[in-house]
Amino acid sequence: MALMVQKFGGTSVGTVERIQLVAGKVAKARAGGDKLVIVVSAMSGETNRLTALAMQIQPQPNVREMDVLLSTGEQVTIALLCMALKEEGVEAVSYTGSQVKILTDDAHTKARIERIDDDKMRSDLDRGKVVVVAGFQGVNATGDITTLGRGGSDTTAVALAAALKADECQIYTDVDGVYTTDPRVVADARRLEKITFEEMLEMASLGSKVLQIRAVEFAGKYCVPLRVLSTFKEGPGTLITLDEENSSMEQPTVSGIAFSRDEAKISVLGVPDAPGVASKVLSPIGEANIEIDVIVQNVAADKSNDITFTVSRSDVDKAKSILQDVAAELGAREVVTDNKIVKVSIVGVGMRSHAGVASTMFRALASEGINIQMITTSEIKISVIIDEKYLELSVRTLHSAFGLE
Amino acid sequence: MALMVQKFGGTSVGTVERIQLVAGKVAKARAGGDKLVIVVSAMSGETNRLTALAMQIQPQPNVREMDVLLSTGEQVTIALLCMALKEEGVEAVSYTGSQVKILTDDAHTKARIERIDDDKMRSDLDRGKVVVVAGFQGVNATGDITTLGRGGSDTTAVALAAALKADECQIYTDVDGVYTTDPRVVADARRLEKITFEEMLEMASLGSKVLQIRAVEFAGKYCVPLRVLSTFKEGPGTLITLDEENSSMEQPTVSGIAFSRDEAKISVLGVPDAPGVASKVLSPIGEANIEIDVIVQNVAADKSNDITFTVSRSDVDKAKSILQDVAAELGAREVVTDNKIVKVSIVGVGMRSHAGVASTMFRALASEGINIQMITTSEIKISVIIDEKYLELSVRTLHSAFGLE
Repeated sequence: MALMVQKFGGTSVGTVERIQLVAGKVAKARAGGDKLVIVVSAMSGETNRLTALAMQIQPQPNVREMDVLLSTGEQVTIALLCMALKEEGVEAVSYTGSQVKILTDDAHTKARIERIDDDKMRSDLDRGKVVVVAGFQGVNATGDITTLGRGGSDTTAVALAAALKADECQIYTDVDGVYTTDPRVVADARRLEKITFEEMLEMASLGSKVLQIRAVEFAGKYCVPLRVLSTFKEGPGTLITLDEENSSMEQPTVSGIAFSRDEAKISVLGVPDAPGVASKVLSPIGEANIEIDVIVQNVAADKSNDITFTVSRSDVDKAKSILQDVAAELGAREVVTDNKIVKVSIVGVGMRSHAGVASTMFRALASEGINIQMITTSEIKISVIIDEKYLELSVRTLHSAFGLE
Repeated sequence: MALMVQKFGGTSVGTVERIQLVAGKVAKARAGGDKLVIVVSAMSGETNRLTALAMQIQPQPNVREMDVLLSTGEQVTIALLCMALKEEGVEAVSYTGSQVKILTDDAHTKARIERIDDDKMRSDLDRGKVVVVAGFQGVNATGDITTLGRGGSDTTAVALAAALKADECQIYTDVDGVYTTDPRVVADARRLEKITFEEMLEMASLGSKVLQIRAVEFAGKYCVPLRVLSTFKEGPGTLITLDEENSSMEQPTVSGIAFSRDEAKISVLGVPDAPGVASKVLSPIGEANIEIDVIVQNVAADKSNDITFTVSRSDVDKAKSILQDVAAELGAREVVTDNKIVKVSIVGVGMRSHAGVASTMFRALASEGINIQMITTSEIKISVIIDEKYLELSVRTLHSAFGLE
């Protein structure tokens, strides 16, 4: 008899019919003998509806009251799901974040979980009840309602699984697992049976948005086995586990190809080659809350310096205007930007022990005439920045070069 | 500097614009120096929307989960109203029933308030904040969300006013006060400046549904001065106070004319005249949860008995079918029903000390040829059951006979 935490997102509970579908799945799992804690999001569309109401009243809504408002979304779902479970003959009980309670810090709209009381849940589970918990929300030490920010329901599920020492945390979504790459780009992309937390983090942060990064980090930290699977299609999904458990002889070098279209490149050309220059260029960007991704610094023969880095496309104009002031101050020649780039990455824990992965990657891209503009590497990932027109070609080429079909 | 509890119902907060209107009113009152606790209902339509969702899933929704579901309605309003108040430059903080906390018994969907913690509210008020509380809801001793049932927000407002020893509890609604009778029936009906709790109870229970009976009872019990006034129209409204405060020399005999269309009459004819017969007739009705109003028992010369009573029109068929069994058992002659009746009442604490009120009433009705079918009296009320076609005529006649214009 296993203890499972199952999380169903907004799309999975978006209508009465889907809530009934979820109740059917839960009833089946319960009939199989598992102890179940179910975490749900707001019905899809509800958070947007509530946000729109708030924005009509206060263009920048007060964060404490925003949390009071938005937390009603999941509260509606837990009640409806419990009703649907009772219709299925399953004993169920609902809890809001405050009721559980899921104690967080005071950071409204992006709170962090600090502690979870598991007494009520355990006692209900012991009495055979299915426990239904509102995702995305908690309560601070003074009793104010907090929310965990984007993807918070995944985080709730993982945190509950960690607190309850659940056998598995199952994230039900509208895809049936993690793929070697986006199946819309590569038709023969393959569902992965297993992936490590580290690989999943790299895949997620690079645009394969199946799971929220924060939830994966959390699961990795607390060693919670995480499974991604589909609400609407039967199947084992993809299990995300610790590196160790996954290190079989068959471990392929590269597990997947990730990519991101939301990339823009900024270069400050002709910066004097002097200590502290990189910091003078990049610090104002950080202070403006713009996230920098890949950074390349290139010192030319004449000792003048080019600094190039990438940001989100939505940040590029703001970054450019900041840098024009900095460039003038430093006596740099020019600030140029390029929106028409993408980032393509190969990800795999196998890279650690396999030499020659980078050269395979670069050779494959060169054979298709794809020019690499920037390169960045980590222990389990190599990313290249290329012209956006080569996105699909490069992903297909790499998928095949590393034998992922 | 007075402490006021103000309650705004669903119609008053039914749209973003109306919430902003309410915030404007509250801001004005706050600028006048009053300490304010605001109680709000769910936006109009929201409770129906949520109920419809629940009914689609569970035709008889689980009551615990129904309370979890419905309580989100007011939670949305408190957040939005606080945002609107902040836009008006007013410091405000919202609390759900659980957060206050408003402790109730375990009777989901019709819970009774047992205790109110006023610490948080007092400390916020002392710091100059407006406190916004979700009406209609509370929390039981185990931490489950409860709701107070129909009209619960009025009850919340009165209970908070009692707990905080507020100077006044102001119920904002879409009418501008309590009238001598329904202005749709009598054009020159007059708004009452003051009315006693007892009179208000009689008026409310007889169909002048401005305030919930429960809230009035509560206010009377805890001596909370209650004022009914309009959200949309300036004016002093009607103050509902203790009898004593209202006993001026000018106190009129009759304060108002109330009426109710939701009446049906049932007669069991030819019941034997023996001890315990009335109980045998009426007990099964009570056991079926049918409320009985006026009862008349009439012993004829031949010692056979007619028992007649009134019930809500929706209950009359059920009551009849119960009574047919009882009638057969008792050897009664016949059970007859009449749906085409109404109840008209004169209400006033002044009746206590004025003789001849009843005869004035009966004479006025007789002069218009209105036949009285049943009569019932209390210390401050006389009700008659008449043919429904005379409703408007009788109300106008009595309104004029007691000089209420």
